[in-house]
Amino acid sequence: MIERLAIIGVGMIGSSLALALKQAGVVGHVVGCGRNQHNLEKGIELGVIDSYQLSIVDAVDGADTVVVAVPLGVMKSVFEQISGAITDDMVITDVGSAKASVVRAAKASFGARAGQFVPGHPIAGAEKSGVEAGIASLYQNRRVILTPLDSTDPAAVAKIEQMWRSCGAKIDYLDVEHHDRVLAATSHLPHMLAYSLVNYLSNLNEHDEIFNYAAGGFRDFTRIASSDPVMWRDVCISNSDALLKFIEGYKDELDQVSAAIRNQDGERLLQLFGKAKSERDLLIGNC
Amino acid sequence: MIERLAIIGVGMIGSSLALALKQAGVVGHVVGCGRNQHNLEKGIELGVIDSYQLSIVDAVDGADTVVVAVPLGVMKSVFEQISGAITDDMVITDVGSAKASVVRAAKASFGARAGQFVPGHPIAGAEKSGVEAGIASLYQNRRVILTPLDSTDPAAVAKIEQMWRSCGAKIDYLDVEHHDRVLAATSHLPHMLAYSLVNYLSNLNEHDEIFNYAAGGFRDFTRIASSDPVMWRDVCISNSDALLKFIEGYKDELDQVSAAIRNQDGERLLQLFGKAKSERDLLIGNC
Repeated sequence: MIERLAIIGVGMIGSSLALALKQAGVVGHVVGCGRNQHNLEKGIELGVIDSYQLSIVDAVDGADTVVVAVPLGVMKSVFEQISGAITDDMVITDVGSAKASVVRAAKASFGARAGQFVPGHPIAGAEKSGVEAGIASLYQNRRVILTPLDSTDPAAVAKIEQMWRSCGAKIDYLDVEHHDRVLAATSHLPHMLAYSLVNYLSNLNEHDEIFNYAAGGFRDFTRIASSDPVMWRDVCISNSDALLKFIEGYKDELDQVSAAIRNQDGERLLQLFGKAKSERDLLIGNC
Repeated sequence: MIERLAIIGVGMIGSSLALALKQAGVVGHVVGCGRNQHNLEKGIELGVIDSYQLSIVDAVDGADTVVVAVPLGVMKSVFEQISGAITDDMVITDVGSAKASVVRAAKASFGARAGQFVPGHPIAGAEKSGVEAGIASLYQNRRVILTPLDSTDPAAVAKIEQMWRSCGAKIDYLDVEHHDRVLAATSHLPHMLAYSLVNYLSNLNEHDEIFNYAAGGFRDFTRIASSDPVMWRDVCISNSDALLKFIEGYKDELDQVSAAIRNQDGERLLQLFGKAKSERDLLIGNC
């Protein structure tokens, strides 16, 4: 049971968490905190949060659980503001989609209290933002990855694990670097590819015409290019090493297709496309 | 009105056309032709075709309209078989997703009768194949691009335009090279990107783990990697010049993202992602 939950950043991820915990009946009071007062008032109206504070220090006051659901780029500044207000029984977690940079910031900000911080990442969300995007079922059967360190308090980890389980999520543990590598491949790289495709096409001469003929495949393929630019800027900066490596590797893969096309090597193309199709068809059941 | 329609290649595209024309009541007898007798028998069972022939010459005999709906790689051989059986009042069209190679094949095969051939391309379809994938509504409000030459018989063009209009499609006219360039950008390039992403990830060490954490964005992004490898091999071979050029251009676009990440240039990343998001959000209404 969470007596008093402080959610710093009341967007889709934070709001969905609050709604899910309320629906499960495992949370007492939820206090929201953010810079957009209109969004916070909307949060109260929608029953997502019970009260709000504009100051982080005020928001975490008396909370036993603090969830930091802000873009990666402001994580450190939020941690620093929390750090002066941490009490003994307070557990802090985050939802950032890259973990090494968050862990570095937590160590620097929380110092001796860093063991009370549990790095987390729910694999869920969409191209929506704001409190109105929150849905109680968002985490049902979705994975949440926790990446605690050896120095993380086991009781804190257990509390955060229980919080996510109450939302219907499945919990996995990965080490920080492993998390960042896997996510760079499955999420960060595809976003870069989608953003780049839309930009590339929009820079071509026949821009309007090209978008006119874009069919369903293209629409699906570029859906993630509607994602929040601020969030993705921060992901790129936070997970740059893994991401840069994968972009280069991907270009090499693309060169294999180019080479086969250039050589009019039908056998090789069939092999490449056939392999991708089998992998993808196998995968459909899993994601 | 089409008295006798021959469909060479009874897959999703050909079957959907037959069903739509029947539903509109604008076709008499539909004869199907293909190499897979089981598929053709299924076509009769489902009411997609009224009869079938295994020989192309027999199938086109007496037909006033012939639709060639086979992969681009066998287009030429089908045209050659049709060529000996063309009559004065026969109109022939195709549905290939690259047009320059088809036009070359038609000129070579049909010779003096090439004016009876109308190159066409319905912008529709999915990752399904076979007669069972046919749906009467597939072309409703979808675009069909026709790319007739100056030497194409205007009456033949009018007949094919009318055929597609009867299926609910909107008709556009483009010249052959323009078509191939626009489709390379909006369809052929995205398919190469999706195939390559799946292959790249499946070659990484943590293959199983990576696919485990693939979320909704990834699933949408790679849907087109489940497309038919034979069809896409043929598209690559047929439209190689435009496609190679776009793959190279795309890699340059990706390099801009890499450079911004490498320089930790948040402003530039925000600009790139913001532009893509605006373009994509604008686009949603169009496709």
